[in-house]
Amino acid sequence: MDISTASSETLQQWESSLSSEFKNIKSENLNLDLTRGKPSVDQLNLSNPLDGILQGNYISPSGVDVRNYGGPEGIVEARQLGANILETPPNNVYALGNSSLTLMHNVASFAMHYGLTGADSAWNRQGSVKFLCPVPGYDRHFAVCQHLGIEMLTADMTAHGPDMDQVEQMLAADSSIKGLWCVPKYSNPTGVVYSDETVARIAKLGKIAGANFRVFWDNAYAIHDFQQPAQQLANIFEASKAANCEDSIIQFASTSKVSFAGAGIAFLAASDNNLAGIKKALSFISIGPDKVNQLRHVKFFENPNALKTHMENHAAIVKPRFDCVLQNLQAAFGDNALGSWETPQGGYFISFNALPGLAKHVVALAAEAGVKLTPAGATFPYGKDPEDKNIRIAPTVPSIEQVNAAMRVFVLCVKLASVRQALQQR
Amino acid sequence: MDISTASSETLQQWESSLSSEFKNIKSENLNLDLTRGKPSVDQLNLSNPLDGILQGNYISPSGVDVRNYGGPEGIVEARQLGANILETPPNNVYALGNSSLTLMHNVASFAMHYGLTGADSAWNRQGSVKFLCPVPGYDRHFAVCQHLGIEMLTADMTAHGPDMDQVEQMLAADSSIKGLWCVPKYSNPTGVVYSDETVARIAKLGKIAGANFRVFWDNAYAIHDFQQPAQQLANIFEASKAANCEDSIIQFASTSKVSFAGAGIAFLAASDNNLAGIKKALSFISIGPDKVNQLRHVKFFENPNALKTHMENHAAIVKPRFDCVLQNLQAAFGDNALGSWETPQGGYFISFNALPGLAKHVVALAAEAGVKLTPAGATFPYGKDPEDKNIRIAPTVPSIEQVNAAMRVFVLCVKLASVRQALQQR
Repeated sequence: MDISTASSETLQQWESSLSSEFKNIKSENLNLDLTRGKPSVDQLNLSNPLDGILQGNYISPSGVDVRNYGGPEGIVEARQLGANILETPPNNVYALGNSSLTLMHNVASFAMHYGLTGADSAWNRQGSVKFLCPVPGYDRHFAVCQHLGIEMLTADMTAHGPDMDQVEQMLAADSSIKGLWCVPKYSNPTGVVYSDETVARIAKLGKIAGANFRVFWDNAYAIHDFQQPAQQLANIFEASKAANCEDSIIQFASTSKVSFAGAGIAFLAASDNNLAGIKKALSFISIGPDKVNQLRHVKFFENPNALKTHMENHAAIVKPRFDCVLQNLQAAFGDNALGSWETPQGGYFISFNALPGLAKHVVALAAEAGVKLTPAGATFPYGKDPEDKNIRIAPTVPSIEQVNAAMRVFVLCVKLASVRQALQQR
Repeated sequence: MDISTASSETLQQWESSLSSEFKNIKSENLNLDLTRGKPSVDQLNLSNPLDGILQGNYISPSGVDVRNYGGPEGIVEARQLGANILETPPNNVYALGNSSLTLMHNVASFAMHYGLTGADSAWNRQGSVKFLCPVPGYDRHFAVCQHLGIEMLTADMTAHGPDMDQVEQMLAADSSIKGLWCVPKYSNPTGVVYSDETVARIAKLGKIAGANFRVFWDNAYAIHDFQQPAQQLANIFEASKAANCEDSIIQFASTSKVSFAGAGIAFLAASDNNLAGIKKALSFISIGPDKVNQLRHVKFFENPNALKTHMENHAAIVKPRFDCVLQNLQAAFGDNALGSWETPQGGYFISFNALPGLAKHVVALAAEAGVKLTPAGATFPYGKDPEDKNIRIAPTVPSIEQVNAAMRVFVLCVKLASVRQALQQR
């Protein structure tokens, strides 16, 4: 289906045949959903032993009664679990509440209002505050910025991570940029893993951006690999230390997509200086994390290979859904220019770029045919995709049959929208 | 021991004998702690069945899979549990994370920065922001104000709650007062229950203080009665509705001192208008509460009398410790003017007023003799007790024998400090 060279007559024929197919699919009254980046029931079942795992023993291996107040950093064994995931020293990890999003918001809010390294470092004392957002990206990151009144600038995502030439130039040109959002592994939504060079350049951005700049390194999919050996992400903690920029990196992770979504542990890893500021601010707003739930996770993953095996079990459920999406995309667009995408080897999302100007139209057509997609634009700050081309596909929740049925609709809608656009442009 | 009428010689004799007793006690090398308002191990044991109570069934009675994302207001059954505790309609209750302190901070922060009823209602658009703090009060409330840059003004606590004449006059005189902290039942630290008249007057403060004024009604000890029938607290939700002031009241509670401290559920109850504003702001900072833990609590308290029986079991453990404190105080100061206190019928604290100017000295003496007390001044904003007389006693954690031993030291220190002061003033 080469739209650019097709005659108007051919386009008309395609339009007619695709429209007819679309009409038939509509009559099937489908009700499918590719919007939700959350675990399926089969995945959740993997963690069912969590409740009851303590068997009445509420004392942590290091002797803490997890039922009572105290320990704002989390229990040491949970911090070690976070350290294993983020590959940092356990002393540089806090194990906290049930949401890394809350941690990211809290840290940004602390940095904004109180300063992470003393009151003078507060962003709101330094005029307007901006963040760099690689796009497409994660809407909840953008929402944190909006909520805190932080202006968002965009940089392009490449197959190796953010376009670092852009990032470095923008930081050098504008000292009011105080943050950079990153999902470094199986990025949301493109699924790429940042290259070693990208990580190395991010690790020393502090030298360009100054002492109060912070990279929000949301390593949400750190261990969510589809196969072994997995793609390796370079160690930002060590790289930033080697570059004398360790204060500019704050890492986040959680077990939300490891154990239970919303009932897991969130982790934060940072330099000693950052942790001191964060701990002080946390003391005003929290009585400490749920240590009982931390101990449950520690017990659940206490055998050295338990976490690895657990994530392989996740992969066995998730990967076939991704394969199904990718096969449908390849079959429909592998030989034409109607769409482009990356091939993630882990994570929760596939990001599809239609021809410019078509994303909203495709999402609307799919909705008409009973397939719910994430709103077009959601992957950009302020919900505005300047080229209106990016669509995020989240295939984990539906069954493989449902994913397949939804993708059949999706590719049809992309083709139909593309052909109609080409006709209008003739 | 009537210090005011005693001769200098008698005072000298007392001083000598008390000093000698103090020296003996010091030689015992005690290590006792009356600082911590937290449950004892015996109390925590009451909730041990929580872990494992789900027996593999993670579906709530109303059909929610609590293991996955969704439901920012908490599961309906947990909201009903909060409604039972706060005596409000369940639709006006959110069941959220593990800490009511976090909720209070969040609501104050939302009101400050974003407004609970639209952007125009944000406190930070209205010049300086002040809160009224009845004293003595709860240090963590004051810390929230300090963290948010809210100036604190004090009003006196009486045996019936805050001095409402003072409160009403201050609100009428200063429109920058946007909040009032209340612990209405078994108040922290005095242990009093607000009278019906006090509740009725607080319920209509919005008429004096304006649309953006909020009472932070921290009903932390709503069901923490020592005996039945318990002292009744009038229903502020209904009273505020009757007065057309329902937007001015925000209620908080938690199960931190019902089940596990830090691993329970926190509740927030408010008018529809307030909840709408809070829900919107929460959506930026949270992926929702831990619903698995909510379901555990729902199961644990699902029988109609379970909660009542559970709190009676708590009382059976806590009350003897309070009795021990009160008996020691009565024996030492019942017939003289060296100290005054209330007799709480529930809660976690006893508040003792020494003679003015003595609190810090008493706390220092007790520390010297191996008994740790909450720092003098902690019950006042900015840590400053203007009369330096209030000391908070928290007897729940130590054993009865330890409470008794600690109180023996405490009364001795009060007597010694009082006699020495009297001698200096001669």
